[in-house]
Amino acid sequence: MSLRRLSFAIQHTRKLHRSLYFSAAEMARAMTVTFLGTCSGGGPNESRNCSSLVLDCKLANGALWMVDCAEGTTRQFAFQPPDTPSWLKPNSVTKMFITHMHADHCMGIIPMLRNILYPPSIDPNAFVPINPHPKIEIFGPAGIRTFVRSIMTMTLTHTADKYVVHELLRPDDVPTPCDPPEVMHTNEVAGKDIWCSEDGFWREFTIGRSVFGDVLVDAGPILHRDPCLGFIFREHEEPKRKIVILGDTYDPSPIIPLCMSPSLLIHEATDAHIPREIAPQHRRTPEKVLHTALARGHSIPQMAGEFAKTIGAEKLVLNHIGSRHVCSFPAPRHDRDSRLLVIREIERQATEAWGSGRHAMAAWDFMRVVVPAPESESMRQNDQNRSSSYEHVYADVGADGLPYVNKKRKW
Amino acid sequence: MSLRRLSFAIQHTRKLHRSLYFSAAEMARAMTVTFLGTCSGGGPNESRNCSSLVLDCKLANGALWMVDCAEGTTRQFAFQPPDTPSWLKPNSVTKMFITHMHADHCMGIIPMLRNILYPPSIDPNAFVPINPHPKIEIFGPAGIRTFVRSIMTMTLTHTADKYVVHELLRPDDVPTPCDPPEVMHTNEVAGKDIWCSEDGFWREFTIGRSVFGDVLVDAGPILHRDPCLGFIFREHEEPKRKIVILGDTYDPSPIIPLCMSPSLLIHEATDAHIPREIAPQHRRTPEKVLHTALARGHSIPQMAGEFAKTIGAEKLVLNHIGSRHVCSFPAPRHDRDSRLLVIREIERQATEAWGSGRHAMAAWDFMRVVVPAPESESMRQNDQNRSSSYEHVYADVGADGLPYVNKKRKW
Repeated sequence: MSLRRLSFAIQHTRKLHRSLYFSAAEMARAMTVTFLGTCSGGGPNESRNCSSLVLDCKLANGALWMVDCAEGTTRQFAFQPPDTPSWLKPNSVTKMFITHMHADHCMGIIPMLRNILYPPSIDPNAFVPINPHPKIEIFGPAGIRTFVRSIMTMTLTHTADKYVVHELLRPDDVPTPCDPPEVMHTNEVAGKDIWCSEDGFWREFTIGRSVFGDVLVDAGPILHRDPCLGFIFREHEEPKRKIVILGDTYDPSPIIPLCMSPSLLIHEATDAHIPREIAPQHRRTPEKVLHTALARGHSIPQMAGEFAKTIGAEKLVLNHIGSRHVCSFPAPRHDRDSRLLVIREIERQATEAWGSGRHAMAAWDFMRVVVPAPESESMRQNDQNRSSSYEHVYADVGADGLPYVNKKRKW
Repeated sequence: MSLRRLSFAIQHTRKLHRSLYFSAAEMARAMTVTFLGTCSGGGPNESRNCSSLVLDCKLANGALWMVDCAEGTTRQFAFQPPDTPSWLKPNSVTKMFITHMHADHCMGIIPMLRNILYPPSIDPNAFVPINPHPKIEIFGPAGIRTFVRSIMTMTLTHTADKYVVHELLRPDDVPTPCDPPEVMHTNEVAGKDIWCSEDGFWREFTIGRSVFGDVLVDAGPILHRDPCLGFIFREHEEPKRKIVILGDTYDPSPIIPLCMSPSLLIHEATDAHIPREIAPQHRRTPEKVLHTALARGHSIPQMAGEFAKTIGAEKLVLNHIGSRHVCSFPAPRHDRDSRLLVIREIERQATEAWGSGRHAMAAWDFMRVVVPAPESESMRQNDQNRSSSYEHVYADVGADGLPYVNKKRKW
C-alpha cells in the first residue's frame, strides 16, 4: 500500500512538528537532530529509510552536520514534510560522520557528494573557480577513505568542488594513503589520519564554530560485530549541551568515559519482544529476541534504557528500529494505527529500564528532536511569544492510547 | 512540499493502471516494463528516483529482470502504488543488466543484493542449504564485477546465497579476474568474461525460458561520455516481440543492426527546450539546450524520435528525464498540473520527429508499459472478459489539455 501510508505518516509527523512549542528565540539557540532514516539494515521499508540524521548545532553560515548516510538519504531531503520549519538542504552539509562500514550506514555517501559538490563545467573555456578547500569533510573508521575514493573512481564521478575523508584509526588499523597524490581521486584533498589516544578515544578531533561558541566532537569505540563508533557533540561554553549519537551496538560501555550526563542520547534498539496481546504476529520468546539481537551485534530497548541510566542521559531516543521479517516495526501511520501500540511498547521497555521518570522516544523518519538552551531570566521576560514553560508536547500517548501527540510532557 | 505531491503522482499513476484495458488472458501473455526510476543523474527529486526498471517477460517461476539499479531502487519496490496489478517483488529478480558505470545507474546494486540474498544464519549449528548456484546474475560493462565485489567487501557484507557478475567486454577492456578463487568475495561465483564479436556486439549472451518460448538478450555499444550499452530483449518464437532499452546516449547509431523494428524502444531524453509560453522559467535557447545535452553525452526528445524513426519502432518511451537546475522536469502530480504541459511538450517534440502517427510517451515512476502479444482469433472468442478492442487508454492528452488519462489511443 506504501505511498498513501507514507503520506499518513507525514501528516502525523507534521502534527508533531506543530506541537513543538518553542519560541523563535528558543529555536534560534536550540540544537536539533532531524532523523532522515530510522530503520535497521533489513530495510528500507515504505515508512522508514535506513540510517541517517542531520545535526543542526547553529553553526556559522547555517552549516549542518550528518551522522551516517544510508542509500536514499539524498531523496529523504526532498521528502521532508512540506511545512518543516528550517527545511534542511543537502548543500548545507559540511561534515559527515560515519559510525561504521555496514552498507545500511554508508551507501548514500557518493550520491550525496554528487548532489553537494558542483558538477564540472561543460565549457573548457569557462572560468571555474578552483576552491582548494574541500566543500565537505567525511569522518569515519578505517576503510572509509578507500570506500569513497574507489566508488568515486569506479563510477567515473567528477566534480568541480573537492572533498576530504579523515580516518579515525585504532592502533592496529592500516591507514589509506594519500601520498603520492596520484593515488587520490582527482576531486579529493589529502585527509588526516587521526589516531586514537592511548585510552582508545578520539577527543576533539574536529570543531565547529557556532553562533554561541565552539562545538567539539569526540568519538569512541562501541561493541558491534564489526568496528563501530559513537560520536559526542558538545558545547565548549555554557550551556555545555552534549549530544551522544551511537552507531550499532550490543554493548557501548567502552565509550562511557566520553559520554556522561548528555543532554540527549541516541541509542539503537534493533529488536524487541512484543507481547502477543499487542501484536499477535510476534511469537518469539523474550529470550529468543535477546539472543538474536546480541548474536547480530544489536540491542533491545531495555539495553538502551539501561545505558541511558548508566550515563545519566537527560533524553533518550531509540533509533535503528528493526525492519526485517520477524522484527519489523514500521512507523505508525496515524493516531489510531495499531502499530502505534508496538512502538509504544518499545518505548515503554526502554523507559522502564531507564527509570528516570522521563519517557524514551522511538525515532521515526523526519522526527526532529530539540535540545534547547536553558533560558536566562532576561530572555524569558523579553520574549512575548514564548509558550508557558520549557515543556513541549512530544510524541507520547496517554493511558487510553490516544491521542498520540496532543499531550504535554516535561522531558 | 514533496510527499503530498508524490501521493498525487501516485493517484495519477493508479488511474493510469486502471486505464489499461487488457483482459486477463492478454496480460498473461503480455511483456511489461515497469519504471522504478525515471530521472537523470541530477536527481533524485521528490517525484522521480534515478534509473531503474523491471522487465517482466513472463518467465518461468515469475522471474523478473531489471535494467539499471540506481540508489533507492529497493525502496521503490516498497513504494509501488497500492493497487498495482502483479506487484513486483525484489526477491523475484534473477538477472540485472547494467548499462554503464555512472553512479545514477548502479549505486543501488549492493542494497538490492542485501535484500535479495538471504542473510547468514546466526546459529553456527543451523543447517543452511548451501546453494552453489547464484540466486542472481548481474551483467554489465567492464568494471562492474570489481564494483560489486569491492563494495561487498568494504561494507563487510555476508549472505547465505550467492551472486555472480558477468562482464560484457570490448577488445581493449581488462577483465576482472575470478582466479584464484581467493580474489572473489566469499558469496561470489566466478562469472563469465563475455567478449564482443568482431562487429562489436554481444549476441544472445543470456537467455530466459518464458512460458511461451525463449527470450534472448543481445547488447551493443551506444555513444555516451563513458562506455555505455543498450540491451535488446527478444522472443525467439512468435510473436517475436522485441524490446530495446538504451542507456544514456548522445548517439545510439552503433547499435542499429541489433535493434531494427522493435515492439518498444526506451530512449533517454535528458534535456529539452521548453518554450516560454509553456514554462516561463525555461529561458535557454534551443541551441543552448542541444549544446549542453550533447556536451554531457545526452539526448533531446527530437533525437529520441529520430532514432525511433530510423529503426522503425512501434512504441517509443522517453526516459532519464532531466532533473538538475535548469533542466528539471518533475512528473505531473495531477491532471491539471502545469508540469503536465511541460511533459506533453517533451512528448510532442519526440512524436513529431518520430513521425509515425503514434504518440511518444515520457516515462514516470511506476508507469507500466504493456507489450501485448497479438491474439489469435480463437483466444479472442474464448475470452468473455476482454474489452472491446486492442486499444488501450494510455497517458495522453486531448487538444484541450484535459483530461490526461481518459482517452483511448491506439498505439
